[in-house]
Amino acid sequence: MITVNILGTGNVAWHLLRFVENHPFLHLQGWYGRKMAFKINHKNIFCDDISYLNEASVTIIAVSDDAIAELSSQLCIENQLVVHTSGSKSMDVLDSKNRKGVFYPLQSFSKNKPVDFSTIPIAIETECEKDVLFLKEFSKLFSTNVIEINSKQRLSLHISAVFANNFVNLMYQKAYQLCQENNMEFEILIPLIQETATKIKTINPVEAQTGPAKRKDLKTIALHQDFLKESNFLEVYNFLTKELL
Amino acid sequence: MITVNILGTGNVAWHLLRFVENHPFLHLQGWYGRKMAFKINHKNIFCDDISYLNEASVTIIAVSDDAIAELSSQLCIENQLVVHTSGSKSMDVLDSKNRKGVFYPLQSFSKNKPVDFSTIPIAIETECEKDVLFLKEFSKLFSTNVIEINSKQRLSLHISAVFANNFVNLMYQKAYQLCQENNMEFEILIPLIQETATKIKTINPVEAQTGPAKRKDLKTIALHQDFLKESNFLEVYNFLTKELL
Repeated sequence: MITVNILGTGNVAWHLLRFVENHPFLHLQGWYGRKMAFKINHKNIFCDDISYLNEASVTIIAVSDDAIAELSSQLCIENQLVVHTSGSKSMDVLDSKNRKGVFYPLQSFSKNKPVDFSTIPIAIETECEKDVLFLKEFSKLFSTNVIEINSKQRLSLHISAVFANNFVNLMYQKAYQLCQENNMEFEILIPLIQETATKIKTINPVEAQTGPAKRKDLKTIALHQDFLKESNFLEVYNFLTKELL
Repeated sequence: MITVNILGTGNVAWHLLRFVENHPFLHLQGWYGRKMAFKINHKNIFCDDISYLNEASVTIIAVSDDAIAELSSQLCIENQLVVHTSGSKSMDVLDSKNRKGVFYPLQSFSKNKPVDFSTIPIAIETECEKDVLFLKEFSKLFSTNVIEINSKQRLSLHISAVFANNFVNLMYQKAYQLCQENNMEFEILIPLIQETATKIKTINPVEAQTGPAKRKDLKTIALHQDFLKESNFLEVYNFLTKELL
């Protein structure tokens, strides 16, 4: 049996706990948090004292970036595989008394909204060569899409995700607000949004670019700018249009 | 039989011609362009002299924004329903000798890539009250999603589409380039991109916002900025992060 410790009570921890509890190969051995923020099936294994955690095949620290280093140093186990789940933090922030690793699921998790782990890419990294195979096979229990990358690549991947998710959603927000201000339903944009996200599965986004800025249609841009004048949309419109021109 | 004239040889015209040719209620009566840029089934109806166009139930001017006004004035028919397909241009740019209207399909068309018109929202507008019902029913032959909006709303919808499509795709470009520069496949971001686009079907984008800027995680932002320093990504990263903070 593969035994798993999980540290954390946030969204990632919630999804990992659910998965581990329900996988026939995995045994949830310990769960640590400051308080039991939600219920799980095996709630009696919860502890708010980190020294209660025993050795496990893998110990997953799924807490906020800033808490990783300190928690890893407080662990009372030694020479075990201990991984964090952060996109930004280097593997090196983990305490050296255990064998370091990273298990980074590339998805924006919301608590209480089940995800299909099988489609979520997982980026892994290990300090010791001997842990690569274990962590890879462990990750493949979760996902069909497991890649091995180093900390620098992972940080760049995390930044890419900021562009592809956070900033994209900010654009959705702007579109939403514009629709609201002009008495139209945002829903009318949904097919276009879906098509935009689908297109780049088959065409790379450099080739997929369209619109007035791309075709240097300065008259349409001027029409848009005139419509947006004195609104708080104009600055973003101008900045990103300049990027595309 | 409902007769249709189509003016133009661009992407929108191509899709409209295909649709009209294949619909049992519709008869493609005339097609005008400077030259026959592609083949259609009834290619003998093509004309490069606008005076050859006869009266039709609806005449659709599907040309670039700047050419709409002049072409509409060159038409030799009178008191007919003449519509343009532009998102930005006011209905008023059409010549007054005919009854004005707008038929604006909200999608980013690529030639040779068939689209399912039924899911594409169509925004309509008419000058004469008596044309509303006809243009609405005509549009419903194409799409299940027909809305009646005025020229000002349509312009704001077009700008919303710039945010939701053009600027979103620019963000995909940035993510693509970052992946390339760090030897990773862009494909790894596809599930996140799909999830981001799917989420806003059920949660409005203001609530769906996540990421370091949203949670005011200045340490992660500093890590990102340090990674991007001296790159051409930094300015966009900083600008949009500031928008979200």
